[in-house]
Amino acid sequence: PSTAHAALATERQRVLTKPPGSLGQLEQIAITLAGLTGTDQPTVDPIHIVVFAGDHGVCAEGVSAFPQEVTAQMIANFASGGAAISVMAEELGASLEVVNLGTVGEIPELPGVLNQIIAPSTANLAETPAMTSSQVVAALTSGDQTAERAARAKCRLFIGGDMGIGNTTSAAALACALLDQAPHTLVGPGTGLNTEGVARKTRVVERALARHGNDQDVLSVLTSLGGFEIAALTGAILGCAARKIPVLVDGFIVSVAALTAVHRQPGVRDWLIFAHRSAEPGHHAVLKALDASPLLDLGMRLGEGSGAAIALPLLRSACALHNRMASFSDAGVSGKSED
Amino acid sequence: PSTAHAALATERQRVLTKPPGSLGQLEQIAITLAGLTGTDQPTVDPIHIVVFAGDHGVCAEGVSAFPQEVTAQMIANFASGGAAISVMAEELGASLEVVNLGTVGEIPELPGVLNQIIAPSTANLAETPAMTSSQVVAALTSGDQTAERAARAKCRLFIGGDMGIGNTTSAAALACALLDQAPHTLVGPGTGLNTEGVARKTRVVERALARHGNDQDVLSVLTSLGGFEIAALTGAILGCAARKIPVLVDGFIVSVAALTAVHRQPGVRDWLIFAHRSAEPGHHAVLKALDASPLLDLGMRLGEGSGAAIALPLLRSACALHNRMASFSDAGVSGKSED
Repeated sequence: PSTAHAALATERQRVLTKPPGSLGQLEQIAITLAGLTGTDQPTVDPIHIVVFAGDHGVCAEGVSAFPQEVTAQMIANFASGGAAISVMAEELGASLEVVNLGTVGEIPELPGVLNQIIAPSTANLAETPAMTSSQVVAALTSGDQTAERAARAKCRLFIGGDMGIGNTTSAAALACALLDQAPHTLVGPGTGLNTEGVARKTRVVERALARHGNDQDVLSVLTSLGGFEIAALTGAILGCAARKIPVLVDGFIVSVAALTAVHRQPGVRDWLIFAHRSAEPGHHAVLKALDASPLLDLGMRLGEGSGAAIALPLLRSACALHNRMASFSDAGVSGKSED
Repeated sequence: PSTAHAALATERQRVLTKPPGSLGQLEQIAITLAGLTGTDQPTVDPIHIVVFAGDHGVCAEGVSAFPQEVTAQMIANFASGGAAISVMAEELGASLEVVNLGTVGEIPELPGVLNQIIAPSTANLAETPAMTSSQVVAALTSGDQTAERAARAKCRLFIGGDMGIGNTTSAAALACALLDQAPHTLVGPGTGLNTEGVARKTRVVERALARHGNDQDVLSVLTSLGGFEIAALTGAILGCAARKIPVLVDGFIVSVAALTAVHRQPGVRDWLIFAHRSAEPGHHAVLKALDASPLLDLGMRLGEGSGAAIALPLLRSACALHNRMASFSDAGVSGKSED
């Protein structure tokens, strides 16, 4: 990040025709983007959205309100334009790429879907490590490659999304291990478990953490408790930061991937802008650990990167106001009186 | 509002390919807009934005951080495209109309500015009623006419904005009278008063309320404590509701106008969607009185309708998702398992 450009942007916000500070968080967004992209005319376009999909062996424990076949079915729905993120990508004029890392259900070749199958699903993390070390490397690499494609297309903002029935169980387990928190504080209803289901899911995460033990090495934790799509998101976020592409972070799953990336490389934090606070209760602790104040709090909990896509126009507005508003002197408007 | 269309939209939200409820407040926005406009394909376009401007006699009491000449200067800035609301109107592809109801500073004829001068400013509401009864009728009528023009242009959403140095003093006084609250609970820094300034402003509102007395009649309160632009906003909101045009309500000033309109005609409330929670502390009580849960809370406090303009893409996204997402059956996606 360029502190010089951030300082110039801070100064510019002070002289635009508005009471200083009156654009609230939008001022900081413009300043952050100016600093990250080293420009005095910040922009977020073009935008690249990638949804990573993969199945979870832990579904055998009955941790989701939806059947596992939905992961594969939703990949087809992404391709045909019927999913929330598909509609939003079109609405925003953003490119959308779907990376299939492996599903239990079969899927044909589909336009816009890149098949980088690691396995039909991860292993059941309650009983054994979710991934082998070669699997986690494959997933991290797949994510890094999407960052490389975004960089080649000169994208100025990256949005990652997730699809994987069972993935809030994996994400909660990961966050518990990384933050050293008890499962009941981070496990929630996901796509819609009832109270009994949440209790069952909590016991599953407790078993997973007991099995995993005290190994705090980030790569070990990710291998043991993660999922293909969560590891790929981690790789994508690391890859974007390395290539100086700001990331607009979605909800619970992507925030846990971001937490994993930041634990691996603290400098990554600078490149993250947080889109929204999910209704999934565990998101709160993850945001707090990342010192994040998200833009939106609409009670969303859909995944797919949808919360980031919904927040995106706020970034565009912040840039438009920063770049195009007149200054007090240009417009001949009197400034604030002395206190 | 059409309860039949709202019920159909509620049912549609249940069958779209997402966990039920997972779009949070965006689901209710789509349902509300479907009901208000009596359609199964809700939309907010075209959008009409009107900024009402007028000066306040109470500025003589030293209640603002900015000099009074700024009201007229900002009208010129709206016309030349340098103000926040000008940039946002262009960004959103919305029509922008500026209605000048009277300023102390002189302004030439300007493109996009409708001059409907009532007087150079209201009277000092700390000492006498702010308006005469013919002045308040003129302002209400001016507002109603903007709703009529929006209806003729077949606009599906109305955004009202305010410009008037000193108008948070007037709005706080109005809200105190309508809600029977003490000035210190509703008076805030506005464009940037320091602690001493806020204390002075509070005493001014106390004097105004003591002068006004106990008359709770809405029109009397508005005449006594309002401003030209606040009365015009009240007229515009009443006029939009009468013509079945939904209103996206901006921050503190517009919310006080909305409160005034709802006190005059409770059915108006149905037509209001609340954009954001302003940093101005009095907004909280006004929102609570209107039972409003705004979409955004970004610490904005700029006025001009800017908070509503910033929130507008959320409504467009809510409509796009509602209208274009696939259903579980269309996409061949399995629904939620039985609990």
